Amino acid sequence: MFEKVLIANRGEIALRIARAARELGVRTVAVHSSEDTGSAVVRCADESVHIGPPAASRSYLYIPALIEAARRTGADAVHPGYGFLSEDADFAEVCRAEGLAFIGPPADVIRRLGDKTAARTAMAAAGLPLLPGSPGPLDSATEARAVADTIGYPVIIKAAAGGGGRGMTVVHDPPGFAAAHRDTVARARALFGDPTVFVERYLPTARHVEVQILADGAGGAVYVGDRDCSVQRRHQKLIEEAPAPRLPAGLRARMGEAAVRGARAVGYEGAGTFEFLVDEAGDFFFMEVNCRIQVEHPVTEMLSGIDLVQEQFHLAAGRPLTLRQEDVELRGAAVECRINAEDPDRDFAPAPGPLTEFVPPGGPFVRVDTHAFEGYQVPASYDSLLAKAVVWAPTRDEALRRMDRALAEFRITGPGVHTTLGFLRRVMDEPAFRGGEYSTSIVSQVLGVKTVR
Amino acid sequence: MFEKVLIANRGEIALRIARAARELGVRTVAVHSSEDTGSAVVRCADESVHIGPPAASRSYLYIPALIEAARRTGADAVHPGYGFLSEDADFAEVCRAEGLAFIGPPADVIRRLGDKTAARTAMAAAGLPLLPGSPGPLDSATEARAVADTIGYPVIIKAAAGGGGRGMTVVHDPPGFAAAHRDTVARARALFGDPTVFVERYLPTARHVEVQILADGAGGAVYVGDRDCSVQRRHQKLIEEAPAPRLPAGLRARMGEAAVRGARAVGYEGAGTFEFLVDEAGDFFFMEVNCRIQVEHPVTEMLSGIDLVQEQFHLAAGRPLTLRQEDVELRGAAVECRINAEDPDRDFAPAPGPLTEFVPPGGPFVRVDTHAFEGYQVPASYDSLLAKAVVWAPTRDEALRRMDRALAEFRITGPGVHTTLGFLRRVMDEPAFRGGEYSTSIVSQVLGVKTVR
Repeated sequence: MFEKVLIANRGEIALRIARAARELGVRTVAVHSSEDTGSAVVRCADESVHIGPPAASRSYLYIPALIEAARRTGADAVHPGYGFLSEDADFAEVCRAEGLAFIGPPADVIRRLGDKTAARTAMAAAGLPLLPGSPGPLDSATEARAVADTIGYPVIIKAAAGGGGRGMTVVHDPPGFAAAHRDTVARARALFGDPTVFVERYLPTARHVEVQILADGAGGAVYVGDRDCSVQRRHQKLIEEAPAPRLPAGLRARMGEAAVRGARAVGYEGAGTFEFLVDEAGDFFFMEVNCRIQVEHPVTEMLSGIDLVQEQFHLAAGRPLTLRQEDVELRGAAVECRINAEDPDRDFAPAPGPLTEFVPPGGPFVRVDTHAFEGYQVPASYDSLLAKAVVWAPTRDEALRRMDRALAEFRITGPGVHTTLGFLRRVMDEPAFRGGEYSTSIVSQVLGVKTVR
Repeated sequence: MFEKVLIANRGEIALRIARAARELGVRTVAVHSSEDTGSAVVRCADESVHIGPPAASRSYLYIPALIEAARRTGADAVHPGYGFLSEDADFAEVCRAEGLAFIGPPADVIRRLGDKTAARTAMAAAGLPLLPGSPGPLDSATEARAVADTIGYPVIIKAAAGGGGRGMTVVHDPPGFAAAHRDTVARARALFGDPTVFVERYLPTARHVEVQILADGAGGAVYVGDRDCSVQRRHQKLIEEAPAPRLPAGLRARMGEAAVRGARAVGYEGAGTFEFLVDEAGDFFFMEVNCRIQVEHPVTEMLSGIDLVQEQFHLAAGRPLTLRQEDVELRGAAVECRINAEDPDRDFAPAPGPLTEFVPPGGPFVRVDTHAFEGYQVPASYDSLLAKAVVWAPTRDEALRRMDRALAEFRITGPGVHTTLGFLRRVMDEPAFRGGEYSTSIVSQVLGVKTVR
């Protein structure tokens, strides 16, 4: 096991990683921008290093500062968390060149899966079902339009270098195609420095179901169940649950086995997530692989008893996966709600500010992952995730009642601060959600928007 | 299910009960003395009633005020928690006479098991093994001395009306007997209003292992595993774990079955705990039954996934126990540490005061049951329990590492406030504890005291 890990992240996930490291006997180095000087992980870690000004491009995304912090503190490993540099193949490569273990898949695997068209090709070769779409990157608007016309509308135009819900546009009919294509190409260039896009069939009432895998890069690979993450606004997840409700057991197993096959095919190493869409006919289609720990990993931990972040450490340290598929025992049901500092009434605009009151819920089978505390100043510079409320119960119905209770107990106030708490409670009350019969269009239903745009 | 429950308690257990009630859709009434006006349960409950001055005898133990509070708020059930009136047969009787469901066993069962000599007799009749001791209450010091001389020293003199570790004295040799007997009789009269005592063989290196049961009073009864609670100071538990370590599977099953047999024999109804001693030869002996939820119930919840407080509600509402023994699946290992506002260096004297800092640990499989918060004034009037840190992991070793991490993360400071945190960490470091080979003498070992007194 490593001696000392540098946590190249901030917020709740930085704290999560510090806790896992401490339980493994690994010393921890927190890094922080000047806006995060008093953060929870800085207080919790063994050491901390100031790496730059608030702008992420000059701190949490600035590779030289991170490498220098690791060198100065004598860290022998780097955990990138999620977001920021977690799926940056160059960062993984630089870490390894500097003698630092990168806690994630090898750089070439990240690079290959980060290119969404290359990932599609690799997964098709491994026998995973894909949605009808362009066979590879599209060179021109004309070619893209031809693909769209062939597969039929609605379609979704996606940035090849995108992922995590950014850089994609849904097109409902042929007249809208040209402008949407132009717009997506421009955004892809601006966001990812790569204008390449591809086109896929869009399923407005599909469910987003993903499979958690663990793999050791030497053939050892298991799936640790699935999660339904269909409750999204602007392709960003708000509520996740495990197991995905109303999924036939056979389909569940086929999806798990497909993910393991895909992981083996690309030599995947570490914890990863295969994202699928499941349509109303019960067919599933590969979307993308996330080469990192997910925000929603706790629901899987609560079902399986497996500490996924500790598993990342073990796998990165070269331990073969001793877990066999038959050892993975999933019990009960878990739900996660993301409490963001956002105003749902203003299109989820960030609503940062100081927290004069912050009282998270507690009690049996309730877990709150958060870096916030009373007196914390929610910064405007970063992602608006304030806390994740996660509950477990023997059945889904009991888990939903427990979540109702936990959300009702949560108290967050502060001048200028709005949160998604009330909105989440409305979603929980929605009969379609309650019944487990919902798709990615549920948020627009709750908001009273009739069609998905 | 009930409409509205009055929570006849305070502190962390009152909050625990409020959470269970809320998840069941039961409205909650908190009661509070004038010292607990700003308590967490008062803020959390649907309603609250002031029942009297700080002295427990005039508030939490004062039956007329509690009954009046229930009447005024229209409650239809009372949950007594632990301590206070939880094992008071008269209170259970008055509640039922007033048309209130008492969430606990019937009054006659409480009365019978509350008399420790009657309980011994009942359990012997049900075939449970007892320690050598007096067949019933002892009428005189001479008779008591004769019993002690027959069974052999060391012996323990116990108040028949005692329990929970209060009102007992260990006697190591015949010359010490007379004074110890006089002293125990006096304390029994003072504490319980009943001078009756009995004598039992004392096992200095035995382990305290208890069995959690659930029973519906109509023959339905299961055991939900065991807990080792040997880490005690002055017969008060400090650390509890489940499953009890190094217990052969056969012994574990025999103890569980014995507890279920005992429960059925007395028509037990609700959640209860059978306390046993296990000696070095692997024999077990019945000690007493606790007719209530235990402080340490969370470790069993973490292994079983069963919400024991919700089960209490269901059983009190007359639902038959649907759980069969084969449905009880215990997974992994759990440990609980009691964080008391006490000074271990001053013989665990209460050390109350205001909390200027109170930061409980979090993260996966860590549960903190507490009513404390930053700014809370720890009162001098009540039990010193501030918080319970409970962790779960797939194995005992991992659970202990997780507890190390959680205790290290816990920050509690305030002028005049001392806690057991540092002491608990020392016990966790003790090789005998680490190895799971400890008895009720472990605390004196850690404290460097050579013999158990």
